[in-house]
Amino acid sequence: MKIIRFLDKEGNIHSGCDVQDSSASIVKTNSSGQFIDTKKRVKIKSIKPPIAPAAIFCIGLNYRLHAEETGLEIPNYPVVFMKNPASVTSDGSEIFIPESCINPPQVDYEAELAVVIGKAAKNVKKEQALDYVAGYTCANDISAREWQKNAGAKQWIKGKSFDTFCPIGPFLVTKDEIIDPHALEIQCRLNGQLLQKSSTSDMIFTINEIIEYLSESATLLPGTLILTGTPSGVGFTRKPPKYLTPGDILETEIESIGTLTNFVKKATYER
Amino acid sequence: MKIIRFLDKEGNIHSGCDVQDSSASIVKTNSSGQFIDTKKRVKIKSIKPPIAPAAIFCIGLNYRLHAEETGLEIPNYPVVFMKNPASVTSDGSEIFIPESCINPPQVDYEAELAVVIGKAAKNVKKEQALDYVAGYTCANDISAREWQKNAGAKQWIKGKSFDTFCPIGPFLVTKDEIIDPHALEIQCRLNGQLLQKSSTSDMIFTINEIIEYLSESATLLPGTLILTGTPSGVGFTRKPPKYLTPGDILETEIESIGTLTNFVKKATYER
Repeated sequence: MKIIRFLDKEGNIHSGCDVQDSSASIVKTNSSGQFIDTKKRVKIKSIKPPIAPAAIFCIGLNYRLHAEETGLEIPNYPVVFMKNPASVTSDGSEIFIPESCINPPQVDYEAELAVVIGKAAKNVKKEQALDYVAGYTCANDISAREWQKNAGAKQWIKGKSFDTFCPIGPFLVTKDEIIDPHALEIQCRLNGQLLQKSSTSDMIFTINEIIEYLSESATLLPGTLILTGTPSGVGFTRKPPKYLTPGDILETEIESIGTLTNFVKKATYER
Repeated sequence: MKIIRFLDKEGNIHSGCDVQDSSASIVKTNSSGQFIDTKKRVKIKSIKPPIAPAAIFCIGLNYRLHAEETGLEIPNYPVVFMKNPASVTSDGSEIFIPESCINPPQVDYEAELAVVIGKAAKNVKKEQALDYVAGYTCANDISAREWQKNAGAKQWIKGKSFDTFCPIGPFLVTKDEIIDPHALEIQCRLNGQLLQKSSTSDMIFTINEIIEYLSESATLLPGTLILTGTPSGVGFTRKPPKYLTPGDILETEIESIGTLTNFVKKATYER
């Protein structure tokens, strides 16, 4: 099932599937965490990110060629960081560049396969890890490189957590539709130019290993989003570097999931 | 108002105040985010953390003497990191030491004043920052120092995010009861021995400045918890170092808020 989340004209938020003529069939989750198509159709007013994450964990340097291009060490354990859950935005929406990220230019793209945790996971062994996965979506781990490198004590959170810095979508694709999450082509295109192209088979740590590592003595709440790392080709390693600029169109495409499209703009300072 | 969160015998979770004879008066939040005492009393079955956080942001090195004792640079901007929201635990509960943190011993205490965000905050100026605060509670930013120092790319998240590594409580004290959050005595005691003693007046970055910094082009969701840093006296800087050991009793006390008491145990590996 390909699941979206949307707002109706009464202001209610629903999960839905089978999108046709600006309407969707409402999807509910039963007590065992399974998605049920209720066949009740509602008009879509606007699209929301496919989940409102309980937490966002990210894995850094998880593709060998990307780890090499950054000049950082190939990690022995998954590199773990987090993003503010409020940083998510939907397919078709804007990525806003904050004023503090304009000079020097620094806002970079990172196409990633995102895993959605479906039920609470703790001390999960890698062999059982996919039992805790509800499905997958495309994500882009938008990153302000100066903040990432130079914020206090070299912690990455600040440069990763601005609003709209975590576009996800277009769908949550339930795991029964993904035969092998470690054999999907992944691409990132900027204004139609192919900048990242790889396969999830190139991950250093598999999704199973990541879930085992993150859930050691720690609970992954239902609705936790895990971004599994990006392939080589990111902007800051290019000569000259390539950063997101207002007017750009960013596409993140993963085989069997779909294409996430976002429009880069300068942030405005409404409260 | 001093607000707790609790489970009743039917399995419902409530916020409550005016605790007497194992019952509390149910507290609701109105549309402007104000707490209302409904005067409807319910028996308490067990205590939960005073909030289920939407996100946990933490500020590192925010007391001058603590920054000095760590040997790290006094930061120019707030040092920002996050903890898994599932790491919270309540007053009176256990802090579990995971097996991966036993040898070498490394689990440390950090008494901290925690701020609870009451309404969505974005691009908030420091002068208005406290308008977005619902109240305050005591927190202890429990930290596995080896994981903190040596996890991939020196990111602190892994060592900060084990279950029970964020005890909070005993109450969320609404801000009207705290005349000046920057003039509160803060203490940490281990088995009755005073190990940290300072005042929130010694913070390098004030709560107002922290909220301005975190909310720059980023939304702090209602229910976001901000741990504002710890004073000097943490275990790893002592000679010899002092780490938490099964059987220890840890108390985190802040003037006008109360005392958060937790019991250190070895983790068991139930799923």
